[in-house]
Amino acid sequence: MSTREQSVLARVALTWLTEPGTRSVYGLVDELGPVRALDLLLDGGAPQEGLRDSVAARSRAGDARLVAAEALERSDRLGARVVIPGDEEWPMTVEQLRTLHLPDARRRVDRETAPPLCFWVRGPWPLAEILDRSVAVVGARAATAYGAHVATGLGYGLADRDWTVVSGGAFGIDAAAHRGALNAGGRTVAVLACGLDRPYPMGNTAMFDRIADTGLLVSEWPPGAEPLRPRFLIRNRVIAAGTKGTVLVEAAARSGATQTTRRAIALRRPAMVVPGPVTSAMSVGAHELLREEPATRLVTGLDQVLEEVGRIGEFAPVPRGPDRPTDLLDDDARAIVEAMPPRGRVDVDTLAARAGLPVRTVLRTMSMLEELALVVRGSDGYLLAAGPGRTTRPN
Amino acid sequence: MSTREQSVLARVALTWLTEPGTRSVYGLVDELGPVRALDLLLDGGAPQEGLRDSVAARSRAGDARLVAAEALERSDRLGARVVIPGDEEWPMTVEQLRTLHLPDARRRVDRETAPPLCFWVRGPWPLAEILDRSVAVVGARAATAYGAHVATGLGYGLADRDWTVVSGGAFGIDAAAHRGALNAGGRTVAVLACGLDRPYPMGNTAMFDRIADTGLLVSEWPPGAEPLRPRFLIRNRVIAAGTKGTVLVEAAARSGATQTTRRAIALRRPAMVVPGPVTSAMSVGAHELLREEPATRLVTGLDQVLEEVGRIGEFAPVPRGPDRPTDLLDDDARAIVEAMPPRGRVDVDTLAARAGLPVRTVLRTMSMLEELALVVRGSDGYLLAAGPGRTTRPN
Repeated sequence: MSTREQSVLARVALTWLTEPGTRSVYGLVDELGPVRALDLLLDGGAPQEGLRDSVAARSRAGDARLVAAEALERSDRLGARVVIPGDEEWPMTVEQLRTLHLPDARRRVDRETAPPLCFWVRGPWPLAEILDRSVAVVGARAATAYGAHVATGLGYGLADRDWTVVSGGAFGIDAAAHRGALNAGGRTVAVLACGLDRPYPMGNTAMFDRIADTGLLVSEWPPGAEPLRPRFLIRNRVIAAGTKGTVLVEAAARSGATQTTRRAIALRRPAMVVPGPVTSAMSVGAHELLREEPATRLVTGLDQVLEEVGRIGEFAPVPRGPDRPTDLLDDDARAIVEAMPPRGRVDVDTLAARAGLPVRTVLRTMSMLEELALVVRGSDGYLLAAGPGRTTRPN
Repeated sequence: MSTREQSVLARVALTWLTEPGTRSVYGLVDELGPVRALDLLLDGGAPQEGLRDSVAARSRAGDARLVAAEALERSDRLGARVVIPGDEEWPMTVEQLRTLHLPDARRRVDRETAPPLCFWVRGPWPLAEILDRSVAVVGARAATAYGAHVATGLGYGLADRDWTVVSGGAFGIDAAAHRGALNAGGRTVAVLACGLDRPYPMGNTAMFDRIADTGLLVSEWPPGAEPLRPRFLIRNRVIAAGTKGTVLVEAAARSGATQTTRRAIALRRPAMVVPGPVTSAMSVGAHELLREEPATRLVTGLDQVLEEVGRIGEFAPVPRGPDRPTDLLDDDARAIVEAMPPRGRVDVDTLAARAGLPVRTVLRTMSMLEELALVVRGSDGYLLAAGPGRTTRPN
């Protein structure tokens, strides 16, 4: 088996053992490479008790390496391929999830915001290439005729202007956006929260077939994986991170689609919102975002969407091939790392003073740095983790 | 004739001779009092050539003092009264129009943004009292069923919560807002752009009668005045300045209703906008404002409107009885006046450096200070006008 084949098998096994996006697993892979990370987990050596328990429970259901090998055979039969970091078609934009920082109030999903370990893809396009010029159009499943009309129009217009339309394949806004792009003869990508052998929902099967023929079906989950509810939220971070910007068309209050938009904001991508009648329950989420998130931009049509993503596309090229974890940190996080003493512990107050940042910001950032394995927390302060200057990334 | 009667007669005559809101006329009244200002104008002594010409032209149509006396008799017969500055029911909030500053792009209406010289009012409420706790609800004449529904609901809800609903009496959103308030048995004020003897439009006559019975009809124009097109825009500044905040429900692109909202922004009052379907031409103006004016606030219903105006009502009481023109200046303008030398000219660059402001800001502010007669412009710079420290205001 080649190194890549070993890496693919290990990453697939890890995906089966643990949910995609789990920060602790990503941290181990980042530190040890996928093969050694898998060995460690299967040997019961996960540093986190919760992870150790869940791996043990899952392992009782089967041998992870065997399950992975079967999943790969099944992928082949399905015409799907597995894409991993280091492959030419790996989309580097999703690596920005390493630094995804979410407000404290939403901590409960924070643990599942790490970059993907691998993707299953099915369709004629290289993944990175199709995502290179892409916009996410997301919204409510229970869309109104108004929302579906707007989403279809945006999907058509974006595809017609040579942009890839990315969405989640669901009923309502997602399907309308995909269909608009298909009708324009353009590119569209459905990012699913289940195995590519059973694209969910069944009612959109004909559409999924057309997407697989002309665009791309994408998933982080192996064939056979069920579209469990939490997976949609985990999946949403990929829609936000894989595209140049996200447009929300209709959403009920606090729905999954508003969450995708909040992910886009956290990733500093253009987060666009189409308003609607204030009398429509399906626009409540859209208006909430416009009121609560100053970073969102109200858009009323294609031109305004192109204005937002065009600007980004021109002036903020996505960094390619970062070599060190610190390359991906935002300014605050980098300032904090730089303010840490090379040896020995430091407390948060001292660190905040040195970095010139509020204590709040430092506290918030430290947990991310911890998850990235750049710092270690002790009872009396933080210290730099060994070897954060590693210059190659295991694939 | 009492002093007040003389003042009323002069102000009514001035209103007939020149359009309300004319900055140069307001400046003369501010400097000389209305009686001497009228004498000066009628003697052909207006310092501005354009004003001199228009007064001369108007004077050929009649004797201003006789016309004014007739207008006052007509007002009496109509059951309307004239309210002037110094009267207990004069709404001090409109005095903030002295410092109304508008973006350069809209200069063409800048000359007609001075405070009113007088109001005609008809109805059972003192003007200042009914406006004390008031919200403007404005929008398109060609409203959709959606807009009318929202405006009626807001009108009802505001009146029900003891707020006065102010609007312009037009078809569409205005009428819907008035009717909502009337249906709630609450207070509503129609600010008209024509004489109170012929409230425009005729189709709303029954509604105007109900408003005159339970609320207030208000106008800056004497009985007999026609609802000429430019007057609506002049009138709009009173709707913005007389209320605690303005809610825009529906508006076509660049319409009068969006202008009222921009007035509210310029006056630093809450400027609220109700979004609508992006497919509706009647929401284009609303969405334009939300996109272009960061000071506007998207609102989806009554509670959010109350939140905005309630905050202002509690924490930013309207200053009562300012004594000097400079009291009403904003921070930049005050800084500039203070940076001017007590004697002699100063050029804009020097002034900008002394005031610590960008040259752009200084240039923009100087024209306002000029209109307020606080500075005089010469070919080689600006100098302070004589006597800006006057401490009493003629009534």
